Amino acid sequence: MGFRGVLVPVLTPFKADLSPDAGRFLALCRHLLAEGAAGLAVFGTTSEANSLSAGERKALLEMLVENGIGADKLMPGTGACSITEASELAGHAAGLGCGGVLMLPPFYYKGVPDDGVFAFVDTVISRVGSDRLKVYLYHIPPVAQVGYSLDVVGRLVSAHPETVVGLKDSSGDWSNTAALLDAYPQLEIFPGSEVFLLDGLRKGGAGCITATGNVAVPSIKAVFDGFEGPDADEKQAKVTAVRRRFQETGPMVPVLKAYIARKSGDADWTTVRPPMVAADSDAVAALDADLEAMGFSYTAPRG
Amino acid sequence: MGFRGVLVPVLTPFKADLSPDAGRFLALCRHLLAEGAAGLAVFGTTSEANSLSAGERKALLEMLVENGIGADKLMPGTGACSITEASELAGHAAGLGCGGVLMLPPFYYKGVPDDGVFAFVDTVISRVGSDRLKVYLYHIPPVAQVGYSLDVVGRLVSAHPETVVGLKDSSGDWSNTAALLDAYPQLEIFPGSEVFLLDGLRKGGAGCITATGNVAVPSIKAVFDGFEGPDADEKQAKVTAVRRRFQETGPMVPVLKAYIARKSGDADWTTVRPPMVAADSDAVAALDADLEAMGFSYTAPRG
Repeated sequence: MGFRGVLVPVLTPFKADLSPDAGRFLALCRHLLAEGAAGLAVFGTTSEANSLSAGERKALLEMLVENGIGADKLMPGTGACSITEASELAGHAAGLGCGGVLMLPPFYYKGVPDDGVFAFVDTVISRVGSDRLKVYLYHIPPVAQVGYSLDVVGRLVSAHPETVVGLKDSSGDWSNTAALLDAYPQLEIFPGSEVFLLDGLRKGGAGCITATGNVAVPSIKAVFDGFEGPDADEKQAKVTAVRRRFQETGPMVPVLKAYIARKSGDADWTTVRPPMVAADSDAVAALDADLEAMGFSYTAPRG
Repeated sequence: MGFRGVLVPVLTPFKADLSPDAGRFLALCRHLLAEGAAGLAVFGTTSEANSLSAGERKALLEMLVENGIGADKLMPGTGACSITEASELAGHAAGLGCGGVLMLPPFYYKGVPDDGVFAFVDTVISRVGSDRLKVYLYHIPPVAQVGYSLDVVGRLVSAHPETVVGLKDSSGDWSNTAALLDAYPQLEIFPGSEVFLLDGLRKGGAGCITATGNVAVPSIKAVFDGFEGPDADEKQAKVTAVRRRFQETGPMVPVLKAYIARKSGDADWTTVRPPMVAADSDAVAALDADLEAMGFSYTAPRG
């Protein structure tokens, strides 16, 4: 039960007409699990999920399960601004047997009170009304602007102790992750970057859910597997350096896609949906050269 | 053709179970038109539209047209983060013959380049592929965070001169509205607050689209109708004072709903969807007393 390890917010490949490419999506999901990903947080920020409709997300999720991806390995995002869509997506995922869902707070209206954020999640859980629903709160204030305060996390856990079982902290603020780990040891808490993986594990964290996992599961998993070993800090320093090098190159999603395109020889991988724009190919060539010089090893998905 | 005057982003009433109340919505729309609203910008920020699913919005829009609200008076919002949903909503509205649509930029991903915002709107217009589509760009950076820069407005107008015909500026920054009026005289430009109504009209603006219109069409329309008269500034000062008094009371949407509930005797009007929370009733009572002292006259919708 539950998730533990390196989870990947899987990139969503698109065809030239901007429709989701189910075949390449399935191939990437299989590849990531084969590389040791503990779970697939499909339809997250890195997945351009908020550039997909609810219907597109449901169709892709069903496709994965029908093609043998274990539902227990799936933690689909339910990002939506309305209780209507968030309930529909969460109920759909629970109905398919997904191991959990990653739930953004409603993110259109800004400056909303904690009472409103609490009521949103509470209403969605009530509407789904299923013991199979396991909610991981998705805290990413740099993007969503609206977040889950330490207090509202506690209120949601108290109100729904069997349902609200975890949290992804993409605040980029280690002090917030540490405070959550101290306050709610019963939760599965995942930093949203492998930069905080070792620090998190040493305080009882459950692993990490990280964009870079799309290209670097093996090295990040090595930190997770060996976190109590003598060279844990050295391994962490290496994955941190790789992460930083990706971040320096440009916005993460287009850069990751362009890197996969370059390494796989499949130029279609560069396609992003508006409002994102494709990465600069020269910058990605420089990234590739630097990563090779750093000894970073990458294997592209097949198909 | 086009819109000119006081447009209202109509509040969406909810039942106790948080479902939209079609009957009260229709009654409010009829009331606002009878009071002199030049158009109904249903499904805007004030409408809690981003707390509604696409399906809920489409059903309400069809209900209005079926019940005799003139489609030419309707400028529904198409707020969505995906080209899929934005195209679906814009195409639906154009198919019903709506006078226009009010189009938010995609608002989940932050710090996106102008090229991405341009590509989003350009793709939506291409997908709808209808001469009947008239797009009003909706610039509201305090909420959406992502906005339409002066440059991207120009690029969209140049690329789609028959389709991109107007803009609502809810930046709250008069210098931005003035720059738009100077740069694009061919556009129908509406400040997002009646505070800038007179200044806008004197520079060639088309009117305003304002939340307060839900309770104050007659007094705001008096500024519009008499903007070249001798007492225009005095009328403007009065509506500005009323607007400020509403804003001081709390977040605009719950306050407007609570005010209508108080004045109509229909307590159901206080209901908002999460993440909003109902307004403080004592604060609304004080608002009501102050508005009466200011000589503000309000007529509630019937039904």
